[in-house]
Amino acid sequence: MPTLCQAARAASDTHHGSRPAATHHAPRLGIIGAGQLARMTAIAAAQLGCEVVVLAAHQDEPACALATRCVIGDRDDAAKLAQLAAQVDVVTLENEFVDARSLAALERQGVLLFPSAECVGEVQDKFVQKSVLAAHGVATPTFRAVNSEAEVAQAGAELGWPLVLKARRNGYDGKGNATLHSAADIGAAWFKLGGADGELYVEQWCPFVAEVAVIVTRDRHGASVVYPVTETVQRDHVCHRVMVPAPLAPTQQAEVQALAERAVAAVGGVGSFGVELFLMADGSLKLNELAPRVHNSGHYTIEACACSQFENHVRAVFGWPLGSTALRAPAAVMVNLLGSHAGPGRPQGLAEALAIPDIHVHLYGKTRVAAGRKMGHVTALGATIDSALERAESGAAALGFAQE
Amino acid sequence: MPTLCQAARAASDTHHGSRPAATHHAPRLGIIGAGQLARMTAIAAAQLGCEVVVLAAHQDEPACALATRCVIGDRDDAAKLAQLAAQVDVVTLENEFVDARSLAALERQGVLLFPSAECVGEVQDKFVQKSVLAAHGVATPTFRAVNSEAEVAQAGAELGWPLVLKARRNGYDGKGNATLHSAADIGAAWFKLGGADGELYVEQWCPFVAEVAVIVTRDRHGASVVYPVTETVQRDHVCHRVMVPAPLAPTQQAEVQALAERAVAAVGGVGSFGVELFLMADGSLKLNELAPRVHNSGHYTIEACACSQFENHVRAVFGWPLGSTALRAPAAVMVNLLGSHAGPGRPQGLAEALAIPDIHVHLYGKTRVAAGRKMGHVTALGATIDSALERAESGAAALGFAQE
Repeated sequence: MPTLCQAARAASDTHHGSRPAATHHAPRLGIIGAGQLARMTAIAAAQLGCEVVVLAAHQDEPACALATRCVIGDRDDAAKLAQLAAQVDVVTLENEFVDARSLAALERQGVLLFPSAECVGEVQDKFVQKSVLAAHGVATPTFRAVNSEAEVAQAGAELGWPLVLKARRNGYDGKGNATLHSAADIGAAWFKLGGADGELYVEQWCPFVAEVAVIVTRDRHGASVVYPVTETVQRDHVCHRVMVPAPLAPTQQAEVQALAERAVAAVGGVGSFGVELFLMADGSLKLNELAPRVHNSGHYTIEACACSQFENHVRAVFGWPLGSTALRAPAAVMVNLLGSHAGPGRPQGLAEALAIPDIHVHLYGKTRVAAGRKMGHVTALGATIDSALERAESGAAALGFAQE
Repeated sequence: MPTLCQAARAASDTHHGSRPAATHHAPRLGIIGAGQLARMTAIAAAQLGCEVVVLAAHQDEPACALATRCVIGDRDDAAKLAQLAAQVDVVTLENEFVDARSLAALERQGVLLFPSAECVGEVQDKFVQKSVLAAHGVATPTFRAVNSEAEVAQAGAELGWPLVLKARRNGYDGKGNATLHSAADIGAAWFKLGGADGELYVEQWCPFVAEVAVIVTRDRHGASVVYPVTETVQRDHVCHRVMVPAPLAPTQQAEVQALAERAVAAVGGVGSFGVELFLMADGSLKLNELAPRVHNSGHYTIEACACSQFENHVRAVFGWPLGSTALRAPAAVMVNLLGSHAGPGRPQGLAEALAIPDIHVHLYGKTRVAAGRKMGHVTALGATIDSALERAESGAAALGFAQE
């Protein structure tokens, strides 16, 4: 059953199910996933004249309306992945949870995929990710594989408490993590995170003074560009806001950027990657996490940088030259719009938000809101962080979503 | 027969032809037309979380891929206009050629339409447009209705040669105009422009020293914002490039902006309007033409201004506060990408263009190129016009479209 929008359009308009090849002359990008990251990537790709096909779980996902065509299906369904790949010149992804084995199967079929299955495989297992990074000299919190509750207890005894027990796969926004304050916490956390399946590891708790993040875009030949370093503020383990530039000395900025580029090179990344780091009290840095995709900490680049993380991602995966990461303004702040309840996704307060001078409101078109769900974001540029912060936070405060 | 993309998707995916009302909670914008202006408006609207429905002549038009849904049909088909209007909260248009009587019929059905049918009616007949503007004290070239070749000859004798014979409707990019150097030119021009249909007028030839253009966005309550004044350069009557700021003294900039705002107010415009003016040797200004829509001379605003002409158009038609028109850089230059031949629309030279530092390439996704057809544009920001000009022209020179 065809699930392609254009094919469906053609069928409804002309009663023919296929389209002439002439419409496939533009560069064609396939994206596995259809959330807000795919949506913003699709816009950047469209501006460069690309056709975009997304693999979406359902037709109401944020990227569907902005894509040229949608394939509806599961991201781990090999047939659907192949159906997506068959329509495009290059395939990329918007999250790291696609099974690397499915991606490897695509590559064996000759599909051009960036980042590669090997890269995604290394990144999606956080224990493997940290092992690879450590092997390349990238500082990370001390970590260790654990195969039993006893091994967790031993790690706690040796590394000290608190200790963070983490799922190797599929964790995000604090999901898949548990902080253990003593050996007494092990049992419940081991059960909650599914320790019996052998997919956990532990990290030494990291008493950071700030969290910083940086976007690196790396091309197919190993050259990369790096964006300014941002300071990120989390609330309940979810990114609340991103401020750029981060309050670091120039040498430390450069150190973060170099570390981030080394990390992305270590996993052979191609495309835009988000790199999150802990800044320690002694000024040292530890890499917290790498995301093999465009990243929430880089949304500010749409307005604040000469070339956004999204456009640079498109450029990288097509093998085109990368664009400038220079800031267009001295400072920028991005604030996420998170859902506070479950209900319809209709935005409220848009007129109030737009009355605030010089802010950029991005709403992702999600039809349903849920508590903690990322519904949009607000970016403000400014002469100073404080000026941008005040406007971005005011804009975000004005916006909400309809109560049922 | 349904021609809605989402309906078609739903039909192909689930064998049901309708969609749940829950997806219609976002603000919904309808656009009559689906060319590049609708495409860029659709992107701006989507970023604000709107659903966008376009009325397109065919499904390969540039805006279709970026719209939430498409209605396929003729812009002067009352049933199709009603079908579009039924799906949205407010309707706008991307060109002034929609018959104002069709628009008035929509308004009588209770459709919220901006700009209004009356406004479009006044603007789309250039003789009426200039009459309204002149009545509001806006300087224009001297113009006169002509109902016969004899009246053209008389106008030439009184106003002097050369004289410009113009179609009252549907002219653009030099189409619908003829410059008469003497009475001997009247007969051929009268025949070519269809003078027998009584839809021509004449204008005194205007020996301008420069052409300038400015975008005005006017809200539903009559308040307006105005963008910086640009200098435009035409080649063969088609916009070749736009440079901002125009080389005018600050008082003259302000004079142009005030004149443009007065002109848009004169026709009761709501939304973004393009205003083109002639700068005369004595420093005086004459309004050349008003376009009741976003305008090619304002494409630079996407990157160069805090809020683009497209976003401000969306804000205006929904009744939301207008955004800042401030420049983000000291200078910007936009160069159009025009087709040189007939053939497929596949872009060539994109990698070469993107190697030029800090340029913004916009390709409209047209599947076919034609001589003179607007296929995309390149914008560069810079510290000076010269710096931006060099990069924008180099980018445009690198880009072409596939030869058949």
